[in-house]
Amino acid sequence: MTEEQARQALAACRVKIDEVDLRLLELLNQRTRIVEEIGRIKGECGLPIYEPKREDQVFQNVMEHNHGPMPSDAVRRVFERIIDEMRKLQRIRMEK
Amino acid sequence: MTEEQARQALAACRVKIDEVDLRLLELLNQRTRIVEEIGRIKGECGLPIYEPKREDQVFQNVMEHNHGPMPSDAVRRVFERIIDEMRKLQRIRMEK
Repeated sequence: MTEEQARQALAACRVKIDEVDLRLLELLNQRTRIVEEIGRIKGECGLPIYEPKREDQVFQNVMEHNHGPMPSDAVRRVFERIIDEMRKLQRIRMEK
Repeated sequence: MTEEQARQALAACRVKIDEVDLRLLELLNQRTRIVEEIGRIKGECGLPIYEPKREDQVFQNVMEHNHGPMPSDAVRRVFERIIDEMRKLQRIRMEK
């Protein structure tokens, strides 16, 4: 592969990554809207935000369905970050 | 809203979240495959894995397109985790 061919191949990969990232962003916002709805329901009924059992189910769902190439421990860490951010958001919304 | 209604509404939200999560998982694996391709090209040409300028572009792409409800700083932290995991993976693959 010449340097020019490599440059072009990398550029094409990056266009694809940017597209995937915007779809990830869309799904993160979709997930946030559902979590906000959960927050409203819980707030109305005085239920706790943090439910470790439900969080375990969330991890189990993604781990069970993961066939790679992303390793399961990496998937888990990404979802830990997502869940953590959404939990923070629920707390902020409920304090308002 | 009665407790039973709340229970049902929460269950419906959770089904939706599980669906969104499987789509997120699919995209994460799709992104990983592209990153692996980038790793192969870079490995072949002896190019460095870590390119801070490109990583800035990745953040800029998602931040510019984010219209919420997920706050931009939360989006950034989630993508930092994703990029970090993929960088780790590229290193492991290139050491093989």
